[in-house]
Amino acid sequence: MKFDLTILGSNSATPIYNRNPSAQILNINEKLYLIDCGEGTQQQMLKFDVKASRIDFIFISHLHGDHYFGLLGLLSSLHLNGRNKSIKIFGPKPLKEIIDLQFNVSETKLQYEIEYNFTNPNEPEIILDNNDVIVETIPLVHGIPCTGFLFREKKRLRKLIKEKVSALNIPTEFFTAIKKGADYIDNQGVVFKNDSITLDSAIPKTYCYCSDTCFSESYFKQISNATLLYHESTFLHNMLDRAKITQHTTVLQAAEVALKTNAKMLLIGHFSARYKTLNELLEEAKSVFPNTELAIEGKTFQIGDE
Amino acid sequence: MKFDLTILGSNSATPIYNRNPSAQILNINEKLYLIDCGEGTQQQMLKFDVKASRIDFIFISHLHGDHYFGLLGLLSSLHLNGRNKSIKIFGPKPLKEIIDLQFNVSETKLQYEIEYNFTNPNEPEIILDNNDVIVETIPLVHGIPCTGFLFREKKRLRKLIKEKVSALNIPTEFFTAIKKGADYIDNQGVVFKNDSITLDSAIPKTYCYCSDTCFSESYFKQISNATLLYHESTFLHNMLDRAKITQHTTVLQAAEVALKTNAKMLLIGHFSARYKTLNELLEEAKSVFPNTELAIEGKTFQIGDE
Repeated sequence: MKFDLTILGSNSATPIYNRNPSAQILNINEKLYLIDCGEGTQQQMLKFDVKASRIDFIFISHLHGDHYFGLLGLLSSLHLNGRNKSIKIFGPKPLKEIIDLQFNVSETKLQYEIEYNFTNPNEPEIILDNNDVIVETIPLVHGIPCTGFLFREKKRLRKLIKEKVSALNIPTEFFTAIKKGADYIDNQGVVFKNDSITLDSAIPKTYCYCSDTCFSESYFKQISNATLLYHESTFLHNMLDRAKITQHTTVLQAAEVALKTNAKMLLIGHFSARYKTLNELLEEAKSVFPNTELAIEGKTFQIGDE
Repeated sequence: MKFDLTILGSNSATPIYNRNPSAQILNINEKLYLIDCGEGTQQQMLKFDVKASRIDFIFISHLHGDHYFGLLGLLSSLHLNGRNKSIKIFGPKPLKEIIDLQFNVSETKLQYEIEYNFTNPNEPEIILDNNDVIVETIPLVHGIPCTGFLFREKKRLRKLIKEKVSALNIPTEFFTAIKKGADYIDNQGVVFKNDSITLDSAIPKTYCYCSDTCFSESYFKQISNATLLYHESTFLHNMLDRAKITQHTTVLQAAEVALKTNAKMLLIGHFSARYKTLNELLEEAKSVFPNTELAIEGKTFQIGDE
C-alpha cells in the first residue's frame, strides 16, 4: 500500500531562499491527506504536480499563519475548479470563523461541503478512522493551541499463499474469511490452520508529524516507534535560548526526540529564515541520529522504504 | 521622478502556468505602493527583488480572494522582520475584521500600526495626497464592492535654466520662489519674467488601475487621458457571454476602453486560467489599440517612457 510523503513547504515563519511555509502531502493508498497549508501551497502543488482535487482531508496543526494562510486560496480554487465532493478539515475551532468570514465577504457559496472536526490540544484523540488509516492528534507545547498528527496505517488482511490455495482447490468464497484469520476446513472435514495457508501482512507503518513545539517529553510515549518522524527543527542548538523563547525545537533536540522515541527515520524541517543553506542543520542532527533527512520541497519519501 | 510599475501577479481567480493572482508594485519617487495582494505576493517580491519593507501604502481593490489572500502573510512577515513604521491600507471595510480576527487568533500583537482607510465603492474619492502623488478611487462594476485606483503624479516645480541663473548671478535664497513661478527682480529693480529663467516641468503622468469590472462607461470620464491604463482583460471576446455573467471584461472591450478614454498605453492582465499562452489575447487587443502590452510577471514598465 502506498504511504508516501511529499514536502511542499519547509520553512518557518516567513518564506525565503525559495523555501515556503509548512505544507506536506501524505499519499496513503492513492488518497491525499494535506498536512498544514502555508501561503503558496496551491502554487507548490502545481509546481510538483500534486492534484489538489484529489485531497479529501486537510489537517491544520495550529493557527500561526505560516501553517494555514494558504488554506483559503486552496479552498477557493477547489470551488472555482468545480469541486462538489465534501472535504474534511481537522484543526483548531477558530478556523471555521476565519473561513466563513472570508467566503461571506466575497459572497462565495461553496459548491462543496466543508466538514469540520475541531482538534483538542489537551488530549490525544482519534480524529479519523477509515479503511486505510487511523489518525490521532498529538498535543504539542507551543504558546497557542497546537497539535501534531499521527497517521497509523491500518493492518492489512493476511495474504493467501497462492500455491496452497491452488493445491487445496479452496473455493473463492472462503478467501475473505481466511484473509481475516479463519482456518480452512475442506469437504472431508480436514482442518488446515490459517498460518499454513496465509502469510502475515506487512507491519503497519506510522508517520508522526510534530509541528511547532518546544522539546517536551509529554508526547514521547505517543510517538514512539514511528516509521517516520517529522519533527520541527527551527534552529541550530547554538540558538537554544531563542528556541525556548519562541517555543521551538533545535535540530539537536529533534534528533534526541527521534533517538529517545526509537524512530526508524527522522525528517527535519520548519527551518528558520536565518539559514540560507541547510547542511549544518543536517550534520547536527546526524551527530545524534544518523538516519535523518532534510524536508526538501518537492522531495517524496516512501515511508518505511528508506 | 521615478514612476515605475512592476507586475507581481497577472492571473485571475486561480494560479496556473506559473502565473499568480493579482499584485503590482508602483514605485513613485522611490516609495513603494502595493496594488492588490493575491496569494504568494510576498514570494513574488522575493523572486523579483522587491523590498517589502519599503512598502508604506497598500491598496486592495475588492475582497475576492485572488486580490488579497496574500495580505495576511505579507503583514505577518513585516512584523516578524521587525517593522515598526506604520503602514496605510486602503480597501473595503471588512478587511479590518479579517485581519484582526487572524492576528487575534494567533495572539500576534503587531509591532507596527495599520492605518485603515476604507474605500467607498459608489463615488470617486481622493484617498491619498502626499508630495508625490494624488490617489483617487475609481468605482467599478463587479458584483461585490470594488474600486480601481488612479495615481496622479504631482506637478513638479518649474526647472531653473542654469545658464540664466548663472549669468544673472541669482542668489540661492530666491530659487524656491522662482521654481514656484515668481519673477526675479535684481537689486537694480530689473524684472526677469519667470518663463525667461525657468522651464516648465514634465506633464504629470497618471496610472489607472482598473481591477475586476464589467465593461461600463461609468468610469470612462475619470480615467481619460491615462499615461498608462491597466485594465482587466479576463477573456477573449469569443467568451463575451461568460464575461458578462462573471462581471469581467474581454480583451477587445479593454482595448475599446483604452481607445475611447484616450489612454497613451494599455496594459492587459487578470488572465483566465483557460489561457496557457497569451499571444492571442495581445493580438486581439492590438487589433483595436496597438499600444498594448501584456502584464508579464517580473516586468517593469517605466510609465510614460514607452
